[in-house]
Amino acid sequence: MAVNLHIPSETDIHPVAGVDIGVTSAGINQPDRPDLTVLSLSRHSQVAGVFTRNRFCAAPVQVCQIHLAAGSDVRALVVNTGNANAGTGESGLHAAQQTCSELARLLNVRPQQVLPFSTGVILEPLPIDRLTAALPQAVNELGPDNWLQAAHGIMTTDTQPKITSQQIMLGDEPVAITGISKGAGMIRPNMATMLGFLATDAGLSPDLLQDTVRLLANRSFNRITVDGDTSTNDAFMLVATGQSNVQIQSVADPRYAPLFEALLEASRDLAQKIVRDAEGATKFITIQVTEAATADEALEVAYTIAHSPLVKTAFYASDPNLGRILCAVGYADIPDLDVAQTRLWLDDVLVAAKGERHADYREEDGQRVMQQQEITVTVALGRGDQSETVYTSDLSHDYVTINADYRT
Amino acid sequence: MAVNLHIPSETDIHPVAGVDIGVTSAGINQPDRPDLTVLSLSRHSQVAGVFTRNRFCAAPVQVCQIHLAAGSDVRALVVNTGNANAGTGESGLHAAQQTCSELARLLNVRPQQVLPFSTGVILEPLPIDRLTAALPQAVNELGPDNWLQAAHGIMTTDTQPKITSQQIMLGDEPVAITGISKGAGMIRPNMATMLGFLATDAGLSPDLLQDTVRLLANRSFNRITVDGDTSTNDAFMLVATGQSNVQIQSVADPRYAPLFEALLEASRDLAQKIVRDAEGATKFITIQVTEAATADEALEVAYTIAHSPLVKTAFYASDPNLGRILCAVGYADIPDLDVAQTRLWLDDVLVAAKGERHADYREEDGQRVMQQQEITVTVALGRGDQSETVYTSDLSHDYVTINADYRT
Repeated sequence: MAVNLHIPSETDIHPVAGVDIGVTSAGINQPDRPDLTVLSLSRHSQVAGVFTRNRFCAAPVQVCQIHLAAGSDVRALVVNTGNANAGTGESGLHAAQQTCSELARLLNVRPQQVLPFSTGVILEPLPIDRLTAALPQAVNELGPDNWLQAAHGIMTTDTQPKITSQQIMLGDEPVAITGISKGAGMIRPNMATMLGFLATDAGLSPDLLQDTVRLLANRSFNRITVDGDTSTNDAFMLVATGQSNVQIQSVADPRYAPLFEALLEASRDLAQKIVRDAEGATKFITIQVTEAATADEALEVAYTIAHSPLVKTAFYASDPNLGRILCAVGYADIPDLDVAQTRLWLDDVLVAAKGERHADYREEDGQRVMQQQEITVTVALGRGDQSETVYTSDLSHDYVTINADYRT
Repeated sequence: MAVNLHIPSETDIHPVAGVDIGVTSAGINQPDRPDLTVLSLSRHSQVAGVFTRNRFCAAPVQVCQIHLAAGSDVRALVVNTGNANAGTGESGLHAAQQTCSELARLLNVRPQQVLPFSTGVILEPLPIDRLTAALPQAVNELGPDNWLQAAHGIMTTDTQPKITSQQIMLGDEPVAITGISKGAGMIRPNMATMLGFLATDAGLSPDLLQDTVRLLANRSFNRITVDGDTSTNDAFMLVATGQSNVQIQSVADPRYAPLFEALLEASRDLAQKIVRDAEGATKFITIQVTEAATADEALEVAYTIAHSPLVKTAFYASDPNLGRILCAVGYADIPDLDVAQTRLWLDDVLVAAKGERHADYREEDGQRVMQQQEITVTVALGRGDQSETVYTSDLSHDYVTINADYRT
């Protein structure tokens, strides 16, 4: 199903010193599948995150924000799948806090040092008894080599685990960067995707880490969309354990730029993997909008194209019905857009210019590109020098099937 | 296919004095189907319209606006299906003008007195030779009783003709109100729907007619959405021939209010018929947002729900997965929304309040409503006294099939 989604082999997954992982089955929504994941962090790890802007943000998201604001060293993350603990009111908040308390007791830390994450069905009570009963087993499993199990353990409608890993050299010092993500539907992150966790054993000061996670999100998780639905539970967390010999205090450190580039590559890989495994996806579409007056208007046009059901079904059909893309450009919210200045390419094929089909465009060229699994749409607006890129998927029969049958 | 779409019998369709209609086959996109419709209007008819705000507005829309601005009496409308004449640049404008010139010659009026409309595939040249060759036959067919043929003659992916008709008494005078519409996909009118034509033999002054068509559109065609795609060709035209004995100059005329109500009922009927026949639709969904601080925020919430693919697939599946609706409310662009103040009903079943599932809600009640063909979703925001209503359809396998196969 997934479009060119690479899963690294176990030997290519680099453990991150300071991160131990345990995964088990709590039977949250289904029996006998891994659905409870604990990430235990070494002392003095720094953690920063970005969260959904959905006003119905889930109970665990609220608890995460309270615990991060308390300023204690974060020592563990706990993630359940099968139930989002969203739209659950006071009892949901209590369940998220109870999860933290119970794990804190097992790890001998304070509840404020635990961050909870949930994903799954909305508006159903979290089965807190089953969850806490399974926590000791997850703690028993803790070890440095369980990243792939964790990638499995946070899946919902994902068909593939999503994991990225690399080791880079900063000067003479090796640094590991490894992360996981999940998500396939309800994807239009407005801070981050459903769940993404990226860890490095480099050390970063707290302020620098917070700035870094924002910058990363805005160039990765905040640039993907499947269906335009911003989830109640989106979170992207960056962990810096500082267990390597690389400690970075400011952007002026010459090692920051190469570390940031490697983290960005990892973040994009995790974000794009969500699109590659989008519900029912058969195509991976990159939408570039160039020559915009502002970055915001470039994003407006890119998302308008990415959310058009007519554009998405045309990609599914491999049909170069390119008028649908121009139509979407035309109804993006840019009142003074001059369509005579716009140009449209499919990969390197110039399709339209000056508000009409280009004289040299031939249907067979468009058809050739549309049949690919990976397609880049480029729209030049002729208004300035800003550009933005968004990643999305097509809309297929399987999307409808998956979402019409999700709870049954 | 269509959801409770009523087609009046021939005997219930009231001709409108001053409107003659001729329909023929020009072979625009397919041979042997009615695809060319002419509406000829009596002298001194008043015509007003609202048009798409898509920046790629089609050539005929541009020509309509030029001809209406010229201020001549409009004497004819000409509508082709099979080709939208959109994204066709200068040659498209020329083709639309040539259509007007040729029909003007046949009717012995000036080209500026003809308004052209097109609907169908975008970005393909209009086959102007075939169109003009068929115009004499359409003119030959002109007669007062061809409304149903016209409703057929403007269809694209519509499965059913859309027609509304009534006769009302204003004082002792009978007034006819009859209209047609078309559209099934690429529906999120941002002035009016793809094509809607409503005629009355009442007389209305030009300014009053223009105000009336705006008010009607904002309570009918501008409140429907199928897929959120605002077409390049949307137009809704109101014709007042003045051939009855009712002549109205201002809103102060006591006959204006009942006439307006009847026109609104007709406009809503035509607009709702588009949703009932939406591509792949199996449900007709009414979304009411109440207790909003402003009408704009009520619309923002209503459209966010209406455009969510996850909400739409849940309706298709008759699955009371109501967390998806709350999630959509939460990501509507109302930054200070307090979810604890919101309530959600399915018909008369209270589903959620205070940000969580209501204690009395039972899944079987939600299930019962979701299995209906017509469902009303009500969201109360607890912020004020403004409300808005939007009409939409579900997202089914057939929507994908229809749009993946449209051109082939």
